[in-house]
Amino acid sequence: MIIVHKYGGSSVATTEKILDIAKYLGKVKSENNDVVVVVSAMGKTTDNLIKLAYEITEDPDKREMDRLMSTGEQQTIALLSIALQSLGYDAISLTGRQAGIMTEGHHTKNRIKSIDGEKIKGYLKEGKIVIVAGFQGVDKLGDVATLGRGGSDTSAVALAAVLNAKCEIYTDVDGIYSIDPRVYPDAKKISHISYDEMMELAFLGAGVMESRAVELGKKYGVEIYVGKSLGEKNGTIITSKEKMMEEKVITGISVNENILMVNIENIPTYAKNVYAIFEQAVNLGINIDMISQNDVLSEHGSFAFACPKTEKTSLEKLSEILKEEFKDISVIINPYVVKVSLVGIGLISNTVVAARIFKVFAENNISFHQVAASEISIAIIVDEVMGKEAARLLAKEFNI
Amino acid sequence: MIIVHKYGGSSVATTEKILDIAKYLGKVKSENNDVVVVVSAMGKTTDNLIKLAYEITEDPDKREMDRLMSTGEQQTIALLSIALQSLGYDAISLTGRQAGIMTEGHHTKNRIKSIDGEKIKGYLKEGKIVIVAGFQGVDKLGDVATLGRGGSDTSAVALAAVLNAKCEIYTDVDGIYSIDPRVYPDAKKISHISYDEMMELAFLGAGVMESRAVELGKKYGVEIYVGKSLGEKNGTIITSKEKMMEEKVITGISVNENILMVNIENIPTYAKNVYAIFEQAVNLGINIDMISQNDVLSEHGSFAFACPKTEKTSLEKLSEILKEEFKDISVIINPYVVKVSLVGIGLISNTVVAARIFKVFAENNISFHQVAASEISIAIIVDEVMGKEAARLLAKEFNI
Repeated sequence: MIIVHKYGGSSVATTEKILDIAKYLGKVKSENNDVVVVVSAMGKTTDNLIKLAYEITEDPDKREMDRLMSTGEQQTIALLSIALQSLGYDAISLTGRQAGIMTEGHHTKNRIKSIDGEKIKGYLKEGKIVIVAGFQGVDKLGDVATLGRGGSDTSAVALAAVLNAKCEIYTDVDGIYSIDPRVYPDAKKISHISYDEMMELAFLGAGVMESRAVELGKKYGVEIYVGKSLGEKNGTIITSKEKMMEEKVITGISVNENILMVNIENIPTYAKNVYAIFEQAVNLGINIDMISQNDVLSEHGSFAFACPKTEKTSLEKLSEILKEEFKDISVIINPYVVKVSLVGIGLISNTVVAARIFKVFAENNISFHQVAASEISIAIIVDEVMGKEAARLLAKEFNI
Repeated sequence: MIIVHKYGGSSVATTEKILDIAKYLGKVKSENNDVVVVVSAMGKTTDNLIKLAYEITEDPDKREMDRLMSTGEQQTIALLSIALQSLGYDAISLTGRQAGIMTEGHHTKNRIKSIDGEKIKGYLKEGKIVIVAGFQGVDKLGDVATLGRGGSDTSAVALAAVLNAKCEIYTDVDGIYSIDPRVYPDAKKISHISYDEMMELAFLGAGVMESRAVELGKKYGVEIYVGKSLGEKNGTIITSKEKMMEEKVITGISVNENILMVNIENIPTYAKNVYAIFEQAVNLGINIDMISQNDVLSEHGSFAFACPKTEKTSLEKLSEILKEEFKDISVIINPYVVKVSLVGIGLISNTVVAARIFKVFAENNISFHQVAASEISIAIIVDEVMGKEAARLLAKEFNI
């Protein structure tokens, strides 16, 4: 059996922790498993590198950012390989390029295009523990390319898919919770969650895993274990709906603070204008999250969307471009909001649940700016100051 | 004209310094030059990475050490490229592999086998400032390979050779001094020095540049400028003897404290015994520096050599081995010595100069333990306490 392990930044933050992981991997290997390990950069390494770049300029070149950010993982793979070899295990480190991870897309947010797993399989056959740098691959120009947020999870799940392996994600939380325990202390850990629910939770900013990694798991049927301790298996298993024993109405609630709202007002609300906004946003590589259009009956209406706070510089560019195209519009960026989201298979065509949600808002006098619903989730933009309170009230209402 | 600049670790230690360099490079570029820049890792980055590896084990795998140590330069090239682009200059960063630097040899001390300069020339033609990671290349397995001590200087000189370019090394000292100003405050900066003299000085521990980079410069006729300030050209030019306008008798004096003397006494001084000593020293990987044999006329004489203090552990092993082979010998290790060296083309077959040197020792009652002379240098082992005084007196005598 091939097992792909993934260790995040806090799990490899010190050489002591790296040695502990090496010991555990040696144990797993000695139980007749073929072991592939994906690691992130140590602790706050990536954040510190990003900080250096922003000391220089507010708008660093993205190809160079990929180069810069990809160094942290190269350090961890080398150190973990050194640790394993010092314990007497045969190990080899591979960069994304060496592991055959080809990417496409834009620098700092590339997608995995393909993985040639043959090289890794060859090393596994030689009895080696194979250590792969997470978060990175190589693009068609031969440049290192990073996979954006949660990229190491994506690397691990993609490798597990290609190698037909199990995937175990080790992180600094001991599993997936229905709601952040810091927001709601009575939060419960979930033992099994479906890919779809997890994707919604991840997309909504629950933080433990990025949705794209889960999506990949769903696509290729890779069962993903998420947990903390080395050895004890008391984390959360992300799997297909069919394999789950029972379902709750609401599985999880998240509060995402990395969000801002953009209102574009006094714009002729024709489809072609909405398209023009989107076209420019795509050119600038802006990740748009929730979209709503108001006052569609008047000739000049307003159009709103939400996007991550980190897009602020690109948004300002967008604003300039749009103001040139549409003379009369005003673009208002409101960063003082958060997004409260509820996820659960129980939301599928269940208006009763939606009604319960809005009742909580009404009874507690919490106003909201925007609402968006997918098949299994509802997201609501509220003022920053009300975010946690709203989440607590909802958690209590749905007993999660 | 193509100019290769090289900036060492202390020159790129902060983002502020990187921005200053970017500004200067932009100026050089705007004066109609094609600019290639080689950079080291920021400040103490490499040292800190090495420390992490040694926290794990005393004997880290060398392939993985190369991977680990090579990340620092990748960070600097990305940051410098970001800085140049933020100032409006077109720039691109290249790893050693991307710059076409092929290596051979052993991990952590590779040599440059060849450089394919076409890729760099292509980018220069597009008007780009090309930034290359120093200290690294790629071996035939496709693994990153580092060049050992002074590796970034070697990268810069080798690139200048391939590109038929000038080479300018910027460091934290403002040029090559005839003698360490901390030893002799009146020390003068050398405006021109020959490759051979510089190699001797480097070998003798003068520190500013490794001898291999200078050797490469000599081999390919690359004129090397070494200096500190950005813009002011008041450093030192390392060039061929033929290009030097005038020669001084003595160009430089160094005091090397990393030295100890080993006396092997009461040993039959036959060639085969001397060979036996050398054979064991080679087996133990001891770097022997100066060698002298005394009392060759008596049957039991003595044999002395000098070597770096860092070889102490290996020397103790050597002592044990020799005592088994030659029962009556005594091995005396004296660490309380320093080596004072004088370098200068004027020393070539010039016994008058040698006489002046020994006159200084005689008149000031400084005794010495060992003397060794090469074509353009004389090295003298004296007691530690007399080292600096001897250097000062010699500097005064030769007015350097």
